[in-house]
Amino acid sequence: MGGDFGPGVVVPAAIDALKACPELSLILVGQQEQIKPHLEQFKGKYSDSRLFIHHASEVVGMDESPALALRGKKDSSMRVAINLVKEQKAQACVSAGNTGALMATARFVLKMLPGIDRPAIIYSIPNKLDTKSPSHMRMLDLGANVDCTSEHLYQFAVMGAVLAKAMDGKTPRVGLLNIGSEAIKGSESVKKAAELLNDSELNYIGFVEGTDIFEGSADVVVCDGFVGNVALKISEGIAGMLMRFIKQEFKRNIFTKIMALISAPVLLSIKKKADPSQYNGASLLGLNGIVIKSHGNAQRQEYTNAILEAVHEAQNNIPDLIRSKVAYKLKQEL
Amino acid sequence: MGGDFGPGVVVPAAIDALKACPELSLILVGQQEQIKPHLEQFKGKYSDSRLFIHHASEVVGMDESPALALRGKKDSSMRVAINLVKEQKAQACVSAGNTGALMATARFVLKMLPGIDRPAIIYSIPNKLDTKSPSHMRMLDLGANVDCTSEHLYQFAVMGAVLAKAMDGKTPRVGLLNIGSEAIKGSESVKKAAELLNDSELNYIGFVEGTDIFEGSADVVVCDGFVGNVALKISEGIAGMLMRFIKQEFKRNIFTKIMALISAPVLLSIKKKADPSQYNGASLLGLNGIVIKSHGNAQRQEYTNAILEAVHEAQNNIPDLIRSKVAYKLKQEL
Repeated sequence: MGGDFGPGVVVPAAIDALKACPELSLILVGQQEQIKPHLEQFKGKYSDSRLFIHHASEVVGMDESPALALRGKKDSSMRVAINLVKEQKAQACVSAGNTGALMATARFVLKMLPGIDRPAIIYSIPNKLDTKSPSHMRMLDLGANVDCTSEHLYQFAVMGAVLAKAMDGKTPRVGLLNIGSEAIKGSESVKKAAELLNDSELNYIGFVEGTDIFEGSADVVVCDGFVGNVALKISEGIAGMLMRFIKQEFKRNIFTKIMALISAPVLLSIKKKADPSQYNGASLLGLNGIVIKSHGNAQRQEYTNAILEAVHEAQNNIPDLIRSKVAYKLKQEL
Repeated sequence: MGGDFGPGVVVPAAIDALKACPELSLILVGQQEQIKPHLEQFKGKYSDSRLFIHHASEVVGMDESPALALRGKKDSSMRVAINLVKEQKAQACVSAGNTGALMATARFVLKMLPGIDRPAIIYSIPNKLDTKSPSHMRMLDLGANVDCTSEHLYQFAVMGAVLAKAMDGKTPRVGLLNIGSEAIKGSESVKKAAELLNDSELNYIGFVEGTDIFEGSADVVVCDGFVGNVALKISEGIAGMLMRFIKQEFKRNIFTKIMALISAPVLLSIKKKADPSQYNGASLLGLNGIVIKSHGNAQRQEYTNAILEAVHEAQNNIPDLIRSKVAYKLKQEL
């Protein structure tokens, strides 16, 4: 029900995800009178044995207070979907709704994994677009935690490394986002987190900066939620501005329009490769279950990607991997 | 002597700045045996009455500890240049050297303005590139202060607003960088700073985010030095990656190269308008004197822009404007 478009985007994306992934079954959670009309148009294009509606009477508003949503809306689509994960009737929950409410509800219902204090938002961001082998890095936390201690940053690093290794199949290089590569720079919590990471088993590569992470210096970039959220939005802001600017320059007059027409194959390829919709689906790591947050303004293709992110995390059983990694660490410390 | 290129860039830039600004005189501070050969090639192209060498025997290394530079190198070009400002023999100092050492030395020699606790680095960043009237915003702090209180953020806002008003001639819209526009989000220091700004005389417009600042939502963007430095470097990182990526896509094969040739006028215009070298010259605000920091890797044109930034700040007498604004505020509080 959430996000800017609700079932108008979620239902078509669900149909596409079922097509892309034959072993997948989906439960659409929300007001059935809203969902059914959207499903109507796909009649005959999906199997009733793989797509279900689970009615939930309430909806959490995009600007609603997380605390109020948690206390007051026990039958919201968000709450009911997360309950299904807790009851093991679903292996993951995907939502484009209110991030704060999703976080609070997931934390309340699913609880944290032992040894993890707080959930963190992790997301894949494209880097090295300018090389023959473009890739991505995973960055966390992107906004769940405003003030973080060094121990929190350390836990984020462990969780990010587990996710990256499972999803990409190789030991990730873990970097700590800082404002200089010299050890003397940076805040106290970052400096102490560096000490913890130096002593860890992780493939910790030291401090990284905003300039070198887009050159592919790290596979997992760790920072607190304030810095990470600003970094993510700054990236989106400047990339959006540059893309619109390039478009505008080519539209300036009849000559530039002709140039655009001639260069269309390159311009389309640029647009496609730099398209952020490839990368929808942030994960709330550290919970006792899989919860994926889609961009609120995700379109059909983007929302499908968020569902497929959930599928991959379920196939890899990410919460259990984190649980065993952290349990191993806790055991070592005894 | 500082930066990646030393007098090889600074001397030609000085010649250009003298040409661009007839009322300007410059003092080149550094090892005269290094400076003179570079000046040789411009013989007859500048007047001896407007360009002087002031010998300084030592140089602060780019990676040297600020504390060691401050204590150990009393005759460094940096220290001597800042002394000239203190002695009112120069109205401003421009350096491409070690930022930490420049900051520490400037603070030690010039002292802070009354009512200002810490210097802040402020810089012009292009925004609204994608509109008919591209503009810029000023962002601070960009790395001088890692941990900031709400009072520090408030002082940054006052200083940034004074600079923007003097340089751009209109009352600036001041925004506080945060991770959500709702008042409940953000760190404690940001939330408290918002209260101080709400009660101030500034044209405070509230919280701004990384996405909307590139759409021109604010003229002065305030944040702590850690967040600001990450934001600046992330902007540079992603803009650099996108520009290299576009270049590479046009170079991919003979057909795309032909397209690039045909579209050259548009591509060159994009490159020129998005060129970051227009925007060199960060200011260390809050000091009892004008100190401008150039990018370490600045080329001739960029370094010239840093000198011209110093000229404009001297013409507007920025430290005195800040002093009187803050004095007025302190008086009100009595």
